[in-house]
Amino acid sequence: MQPHERTRFEQFSDGVFAIAITLLAIEIPVPELRSIQIKDSFYELLPLIPHLFTFFLSFVTIAIFWVNHHQLTKVIDHTNRRMLWSNVLLLMFVTLIPFATSAMSENVLHPLAFATYSFVFFAGSLSFTLLRYFVHKKCEPGAIAMRRSIVGPVSYCIALITSFISIWVALIFLIVPPLYYFLPKPSRHDNTSKQ
Amino acid sequence: MQPHERTRFEQFSDGVFAIAITLLAIEIPVPELRSIQIKDSFYELLPLIPHLFTFFLSFVTIAIFWVNHHQLTKVIDHTNRRMLWSNVLLLMFVTLIPFATSAMSENVLHPLAFATYSFVFFAGSLSFTLLRYFVHKKCEPGAIAMRRSIVGPVSYCIALITSFISIWVALIFLIVPPLYYFLPKPSRHDNTSKQ
Amino acid sequence: MQPHERTRFEQFSDGVFAIAITLLAIEIPVPELRSIQIKDSFYELLPLIPHLFTFFLSFVTIAIFWVNHHQLTKVIDHTNRRMLWSNVLLLMFVTLIPFATSAMSENVLHPLAFATYSFVFFAGSLSFTLLRYFVHKKCEPGAIAMRRSIVGPVSYCIALITSFISIWVALIFLIVPPLYYFLPKPSRHDNTSKQ
Amino acid sequence: MQPHERTRFEQFSDGVFAIAITLLAIEIPVPELRSIQIKDSFYELLPLIPHLFTFFLSFVTIAIFWVNHHQLTKVIDHTNRRMLWSNVLLLMFVTLIPFATSAMSENVLHPLAFATYSFVFFAGSLSFTLLRYFVHKKCEPGAIAMRRSIVGPVSYCIALITSFISIWVALIFLIVPPLYYFLPKPSRHDNTSKQ
Repeated sequence: MQPHERTRFEQFSDGVFAIAITLLAIEIPVPELRSIQIKDSFYELLPLIPHLFTFFLSFVTIAIFWVNHHQLTKVIDHTNRRMLWSNVLLLMFVTLIPFATSAMSENVLHPLAFATYSFVFFAGSLSFTLLRYFVHKKCEPGAIAMRRSIVGPVSYCIALITSFISIWVALIFLIVPPLYYFLPKPSRHDNTSKQ
Repeated sequence: MQPHERTRFEQFSDGVFAIAITLLAIEIPVPELRSIQIKDSFYELLPLIPHLFTFFLSFVTIAIFWVNHHQLTKVIDHTNRRMLWSNVLLLMFVTLIPFATSAMSENVLHPLAFATYSFVFFAGSLSFTLLRYFVHKKCEPGAIAMRRSIVGPVSYCIALITSFISIWVALIFLIVPPLYYFLPKPSRHDNTSKQ
Repeated sequence: MQPHERTRFEQFSDGVFAIAITLLAIEIPVPELRSIQIKDSFYELLPLIPHLFTFFLSFVTIAIFWVNHHQLTKVIDHTNRRMLWSNVLLLMFVTLIPFATSAMSENVLHPLAFATYSFVFFAGSLSFTLLRYFVHKKCEPGAIAMRRSIVGPVSYCIALITSFISIWVALIFLIVPPLYYFLPKPSRHDNTSKQ
Repeated sequence: MQPHERTRFEQFSDGVFAIAITLLAIEIPVPELRSIQIKDSFYELLPLIPHLFTFFLSFVTIAIFWVNHHQLTKVIDHTNRRMLWSNVLLLMFVTLIPFATSAMSENVLHPLAFATYSFVFFAGSLSFTLLRYFVHKKCEPGAIAMRRSIVGPVSYCIALITSFISIWVALIFLIVPPLYYFLPKPSRHDNTSKQ
């Protein structure tokens, strides 16, 4: 892949990532503070908590997607149709994240909201694994990266299923992937942490 | 065209494409799930179906526009006023796609919504053909690409006309261009599919 | 100016231009078509006309700003604080264009809406002239470009004043700058039209 | 850091900055002018004043963040995980600025709105100082820049605390950082102002 091609591939992706991540905050409803008493207005802020929590979770997860995308495209030296379209698929689910985030925070603790949210992240991380597969197939072995790339889809799939049984279990599996990302990895030489 | 010039031309276009494609998802209304019964809340999700369908159709179509734009600008070695302004025209209709998509999904199966939607895509693909014409005239023969570039405007024009007769026929012609894009092409050496 | 510096300067500007121009279309209200009769629903589309007109006018004007910005930054070889901040000033008024456009199309033919709209474009074009002045002072004579750059601020200033007397006169002066841009220029060698 | 890596780091950041700064204007409510008398409609514009004031304050502050970010990334020659994630943290608070700005202008003079607004800027400027620390630790001494970088967090922290005592004092401390930025600095050779 000529540098130019990569540039536009990344530029478009960066645009979509940047917009999706910025729109997350737009979906937080601006509270109308009616009470003049500061103590009472604190109570008026309480409904913001689920919004802030899902905002934070979605923000961190999109950021991890972006960092990983950034790592992955560095090794690309030739793009093809499969990479292009698995990337488009990934971006499609990224653009749905603000929608899923709103659905989650406006229907607090509703199983179906958890299922929708889990589904979007499941489909997104699966598309990412697909993109990674096409890239590594053509450009680089990357067996370790591929193995790690399984954590996302598997966790989100479990979250999706358990949404209908216990939303608290689902919540745990929604938090596993970002947690896994930040946990220190065992000692084999880790390129990712250098980047 | 110096590399720098092309860069900004593409950068601005990528920005508009990325924003338009991300805003598609923003227009999907977040459902308020009132029922606690999961079975019943599934029914509350039904009104989302037309939104998701048109979201998907518009997303794929904008993505194809972007991929083709990406292919096209690679051959540009000199830009001129005509290219610049046919590109601006194209981008104008791209920014109208989220509007047309909402019009379509909020007025389910209404002929006029189909006509509006078809018109925006018709005008967009016509602008693209115009841009392609100015690029190939100056830079490269590209007769095959020009011939293929007719599929979009013609299909969308038929969709526009048939909207007033049968929305189902119109729908078919709205699906033809993306379908045509993904169908395997006859065996003459195809540069595009390599990219 | 090192190429890198210019890149980010342009990148940020392109982002703001691209978002502002895409948001214009978002402000157009999606019509709810209640009538099944196609003839009657056409009447339901009538309130869209002022929206589409101002959308078109604002879109073309932002596009001209962008094309001119693109021309101008090409000659920059060294940036300084003045350029940076006159550019920020320009971008501030560019981000206000979607607001002014909505104000205009939601308060059809109201003098104050015309005045607001004219003011934003007046301030924007004045900032552009300022930016052009700082660039040409440091990098290039560009006397012709400077002279032409007066058309925008002067026209918009007249539009602003005449808003309170006759909105139709104001409208003419809002259309003068884009018209002037597209009109063929007298024969002195014109670099701009080549670009 | 290879130029490529820096490019994407900056590209994503520029995207987020550009979107956040453009969305500020979107949050300004479009007034409905009901009176035909121009004098009376001026009164209908009065509720816009707090919106325009906070728009202006937030715009200038984000612009300063961007200019400083632009300065800072120029010295980066090698990125690492800490820089990447302190940058993500910074961007998270930047995306919250449109929310904080709305909260401020829709709850005019409410202590809690001031506290929210101050908090977002406090956390944002603290993240910036963190990013600057990681960059300078690895790439360049930059002791003067570090010392100056304290002004933001300290001012915003005071603004946050005084919000609950006197919003007017808080307001002063919200204006200090941009004012400090634009004030002429004492005569030690100042690289920043050259840029």
